[in-house]
Amino acid sequence: MSDYQKRMDGYLEAVEAFLSRQFEWEPAPQKTVLQAMRYSLLAGGKRLRPVLTMEFCRAAGGDWQQALPFGCALEMIHTYSLIHDDLPCMDNDDYRRGKPTNHKVFGEAMAVLAGDGLLTAAFETVAAADAPAETVVRNLAILSGCAGVRGMVGGQVLDLEGEDKALDAGQIRLLQAMKTGALLRAACCMGVSTAGDRERMDAAAQYADALGLAFQIRDDMLDVIGDRAKLGKATGMDAHKSTFVRLYGMDACGRMVREETDKAVAALAPFAHRDFLTELANRLVDRDH
Amino acid sequence: MSDYQKRMDGYLEAVEAFLSRQFEWEPAPQKTVLQAMRYSLLAGGKRLRPVLTMEFCRAAGGDWQQALPFGCALEMIHTYSLIHDDLPCMDNDDYRRGKPTNHKVFGEAMAVLAGDGLLTAAFETVAAADAPAETVVRNLAILSGCAGVRGMVGGQVLDLEGEDKALDAGQIRLLQAMKTGALLRAACCMGVSTAGDRERMDAAAQYADALGLAFQIRDDMLDVIGDRAKLGKATGMDAHKSTFVRLYGMDACGRMVREETDKAVAALAPFAHRDFLTELANRLVDRDH
Repeated sequence: MSDYQKRMDGYLEAVEAFLSRQFEWEPAPQKTVLQAMRYSLLAGGKRLRPVLTMEFCRAAGGDWQQALPFGCALEMIHTYSLIHDDLPCMDNDDYRRGKPTNHKVFGEAMAVLAGDGLLTAAFETVAAADAPAETVVRNLAILSGCAGVRGMVGGQVLDLEGEDKALDAGQIRLLQAMKTGALLRAACCMGVSTAGDRERMDAAAQYADALGLAFQIRDDMLDVIGDRAKLGKATGMDAHKSTFVRLYGMDACGRMVREETDKAVAALAPFAHRDFLTELANRLVDRDH
Repeated sequence: MSDYQKRMDGYLEAVEAFLSRQFEWEPAPQKTVLQAMRYSLLAGGKRLRPVLTMEFCRAAGGDWQQALPFGCALEMIHTYSLIHDDLPCMDNDDYRRGKPTNHKVFGEAMAVLAGDGLLTAAFETVAAADAPAETVVRNLAILSGCAGVRGMVGGQVLDLEGEDKALDAGQIRLLQAMKTGALLRAACCMGVSTAGDRERMDAAAQYADALGLAFQIRDDMLDVIGDRAKLGKATGMDAHKSTFVRLYGMDACGRMVREETDKAVAALAPFAHRDFLTELANRLVDRDH
């Protein structure tokens, strides 16, 4: 097994173990919402965000285990955003990661509350992290800033309002940078911050921004050429949205994914350990799910 | 003007000034959600929670101004919970504080996002508070713990699941303690915590619990005897819910409000400054909105 895969497996094991311990206390009169939260949280995502947090902590000279709770808080926020995005009043999606969406199983009201519960639990997790108070506060600022109306929530608003409109390149990039990019930026920056390193925060942000753009363009491509079974969700769902594929065409998008990936890798120059992050970026270029 | 009123006016002025500075940056491509957030946040609530946070900080020997951001974070969480509770899939309410509810004005999707944005902004506000890092982390733990599935969100779940069922006294009390009580507890405890006092946290929690119970029983009474114009919302909305009035009758409820208020006042014994908190509790007994 490659060093990359060994390290990745170690990270994934730590994340799954951490997340699977959440929300299963007994007795719980509110157990329905706890089940709904666990249903989506343990549905087997790529765990890209916590992996980035842990590896950037290591790359910046820190102990990756200390970054685990911060990465898992991010995964809770990512999960809540998917639950709310899938709601009938939003994207109205029936499947996610090969399973019926949260509101399909638990109903709309419970899905709203499961999302609210996960978002709040993310900050409980930050508060309980075993790290110096200054680190916790710095990470709290990064996380809440990127997840809120200046970041992910704001991006979702642009996405909703952009439906059935022709957005230009600048608008699509802004939408993407807020909706998807902001959480990736939080992932990378919290890792560096947990290591107590403020100097290389900008480099981590540059990696995150380029990776996020490559990731989103690849996502738009997969909506056209992807395989429903591998993706675990319907394809062709972006027909009423402005996408990079519609704007630039498939060939140019393939080149842009490559270019942004190269930019991400170049941003890693200030870090001594950069093999894992380089391979992670390169693997995302050709991913099929 | 009484000392009570002077102090209350000072607190309310500080809260309104703080909240009205939020979410109005320009230019803002996501301005719709910012408007939706401000619509509900500045709709003129009682600001009971931030007032409690500031006064408990003062009562515990601290500077009340330092508690202002923590109190305002609580008000953001209270406001988000009202927006989500009013949604068609939840309580489906059309009016709140005399105005159309958030989703009636901005649509369901934007109301979900405005709630998500306010919840996240509450934690941004905590992160930006001008207080020692240890204080910020302690308040973060209190706030996120009380607002999440162990507290307010959990209580909303019990409320939803309890509709059209006959709950017993223990179940109604638990529901109330989680849905309404938890945020009041956070308000009082964050005040004491901001003053750097850990010894009187329990006393603050006792005051909050008794006040919260009195407040909720009075709320149930107002749903029957209240005046729609003064309340700013429809009455008789609890017909399908288990309430204290249905369980104990109106006379017994009146006596319970008095008893719980007395308990709240008794819990203030360890604090030197207790006139304001005593009067606040006594005024809530007879409130008509």
